[in-house]
Amino acid sequence: MEVEFKAMLDDLDVLEKSLSDPAPIHKLRSHVENLAALSKCNPQRRSKVKELSSEVVDSNPYSRLMALQRMGIVENYERIREFSVAIVGIGGVGSVAAEMLTRCGIGRLLLYDYDTVELANMNRLFFRPDQVGMTKTDAAVQTLAEINPDVVLESFTMNITTVQGFETFTSSLKNKSFCPTKEGSGVDLVLSCVDNYEARMAVNQACNELSQTWMESAGVSEDAVSGHIQLLVPGETACFACAPPLVVASGIDERTLKREGVCAASLPTTMGVVAGLLVQNSLKFLLNFGEVSPYLGYNSLKDFFPTMQMRPNPQCSNAACMERQKEYMLAKPARDAAAKAKMEADALTAIDDCPLHDDNEWNISVVDDENEKDTAKASSSSDTLPEGLTRELPVADEYEKTIAIGSGEAEEEEDDLEDLKKQLEALNAA
Amino acid sequence: MEVEFKAMLDDLDVLEKSLSDPAPIHKLRSHVENLAALSKCNPQRRSKVKELSSEVVDSNPYSRLMALQRMGIVENYERIREFSVAIVGIGGVGSVAAEMLTRCGIGRLLLYDYDTVELANMNRLFFRPDQVGMTKTDAAVQTLAEINPDVVLESFTMNITTVQGFETFTSSLKNKSFCPTKEGSGVDLVLSCVDNYEARMAVNQACNELSQTWMESAGVSEDAVSGHIQLLVPGETACFACAPPLVVASGIDERTLKREGVCAASLPTTMGVVAGLLVQNSLKFLLNFGEVSPYLGYNSLKDFFPTMQMRPNPQCSNAACMERQKEYMLAKPARDAAAKAKMEADALTAIDDCPLHDDNEWNISVVDDENEKDTAKASSSSDTLPEGLTRELPVADEYEKTIAIGSGEAEEEEDDLEDLKKQLEALNAA
Repeated sequence: MEVEFKAMLDDLDVLEKSLSDPAPIHKLRSHVENLAALSKCNPQRRSKVKELSSEVVDSNPYSRLMALQRMGIVENYERIREFSVAIVGIGGVGSVAAEMLTRCGIGRLLLYDYDTVELANMNRLFFRPDQVGMTKTDAAVQTLAEINPDVVLESFTMNITTVQGFETFTSSLKNKSFCPTKEGSGVDLVLSCVDNYEARMAVNQACNELSQTWMESAGVSEDAVSGHIQLLVPGETACFACAPPLVVASGIDERTLKREGVCAASLPTTMGVVAGLLVQNSLKFLLNFGEVSPYLGYNSLKDFFPTMQMRPNPQCSNAACMERQKEYMLAKPARDAAAKAKMEADALTAIDDCPLHDDNEWNISVVDDENEKDTAKASSSSDTLPEGLTRELPVADEYEKTIAIGSGEAEEEEDDLEDLKKQLEALNAA
Repeated sequence: MEVEFKAMLDDLDVLEKSLSDPAPIHKLRSHVENLAALSKCNPQRRSKVKELSSEVVDSNPYSRLMALQRMGIVENYERIREFSVAIVGIGGVGSVAAEMLTRCGIGRLLLYDYDTVELANMNRLFFRPDQVGMTKTDAAVQTLAEINPDVVLESFTMNITTVQGFETFTSSLKNKSFCPTKEGSGVDLVLSCVDNYEARMAVNQACNELSQTWMESAGVSEDAVSGHIQLLVPGETACFACAPPLVVASGIDERTLKREGVCAASLPTTMGVVAGLLVQNSLKFLLNFGEVSPYLGYNSLKDFFPTMQMRPNPQCSNAACMERQKEYMLAKPARDAAAKAKMEADALTAIDDCPLHDDNEWNISVVDDENEKDTAKASSSSDTLPEGLTRELPVADEYEKTIAIGSGEAEEEEDDLEDLKKQLEALNAA
């Protein structure tokens, strides 16, 4: 378009010289200038910010996120800019997860997909009809860069299940140029949002080899109404090869489903919920708040959310998993010692907090600002709210205490003999 | 921009008449035409479709949704085009709910908001930085029309809590021009996605007056980590005035929070999950599948999802609610008679299904295509899956049976004496 404007202005210059009255040319030139100004798309594209501000003004894209610190939910929200997250599969779940992390101001996103955008993807969030034909990675970078220019975006248009693709995948995860001081690999978390078994096994293999924590998600079972997320810590939890996978086409190749004129159903709702649960779990993991769920299912027909925990299989067929398990076992004494040291340090702090004088006739207590802040943090978000606000839901612990039902967690029933005897006596007495 | 092009072409016409050689003008005119063609943004904007197709091709935006019929989840997905849904509040939850319904191909959306888009909204999904300064309704219509031109969009840029606004709101809900044969009001469902008590009470008032089923949502408690959705059927369930609302600033005006340089925290994750749960519940309600949740909470720190049910308050302060309660009571005999008639009809169908002959030496049975379909429907999506596929999660009923833990629902504990005795004996024997 700019080329056309330039050519037009040049032609007007030529024409002007041949005319006695320049007025009509001046008028035409001002039209061209107006058009050029109007043609500048996205004039409001926001500029990068140097530091996250918590100032409450309409123009601050981070005010509502930085407020998480003031509410006592997150200790240091700004740390989000140091993290790198890799998302494998930029489909119905992966693209929404990428958008959520981008809007949260994550430091760096690595995006992997080999597919292109089709109109058939329009029943899920994120991609637009005008992006049809683009690769999903290119379309995602286009949209995400516009939403938040502060995020470093790296896109890999390739299939990680090929030999070449797998090599590129693992070496991109190892690249530490974004944060050279980081321990372990070059990313803090890998999110698997792929739709087939083969790709999941490739992510599993890479993460086991790199001892890389990752989360797996399935936003669409074949019937579009259930999904799940799962945390995988090599050596500590079951890997994807440890247990027969929960989502599989038994015996048949999943890809044949698509080829035969049959496609899996999908809904923007189920995928949006799964993406939300996945990124929420990721934020809890990265920013250290709440409880990171080891597994969370979503059955939308009944609004049922099962949870569970899976230990690694000591006979796992994956060699890298077996190595990580060995390392995890060997590190147990060190972990125990660290836990003990922490407990002792906490106890010591508690002693330090005692009053200096044994007698305190007037009940005077000195409150340290610092400690008060620590206490607020320790009791976390669960108990503290600003003045004048009441909590919407009961705190989960209290709710569980009251009605004695877990949030769907598979707990072992307590067969306490004394307890049963007491209940029996009470019933007999009634 | 079109005005400028038109003015420019007119000026060129005038200039041409004063010149002996028209060649430079022809050249300029072709520049203008090129520019006009280039300025048409979104060249790939998809065209409207007449009917939803279930054909599995990349160019069909509805293939993955129509697959819900083949999977036995939804009996008639195409009905979605007949429904009108009103969304009040196009913020972090409302905008995402609107996008989900748009991508699902809903017939008509009515959008209500008086606010404008700010950079401070960019930490939630949907709005883009280039829309800053636009009203939320205009920005939403711009984005949604591009995503799915089949949806009829009506936008109302106004505050429903003013006298004038409330009148426009109720009369827009009553407008039946989209589907004149529809019973009741002109919409099938109202979704309240507002962020303050006053607006919720206005929606409550309108829906009580019109006997309009609606769903309430809160995607952001003050600390951004919990939310809920709730179904409200006037006369049948508690209205918003029946019980002290679950989300309130006690004593203080919620709006002062924003004024004093303090804003509520919010996360795209929590709001995305709540929007997903809200629209999923709406789809279940409209398309008649699964179980519509009367209330579903989301505590993200613990991934805890409490459910409950709320009956109307016979001393509700809302006069319209009291009227709806009276009507609901009066209609009880008719409801009971209808339920009885349905049961008898079902029993009759069962008798019709019996074999015509008493003896059936060869075990031949005649299967009616129609009835087979009905059976599939009756057993719903929960049991049927296409050949070769296994279910990802256990069916909720079975899971509950196995581990005897509800999905967070407040069930009464069974103090069965016999049961306790047996457990005690087993423990003693061990």
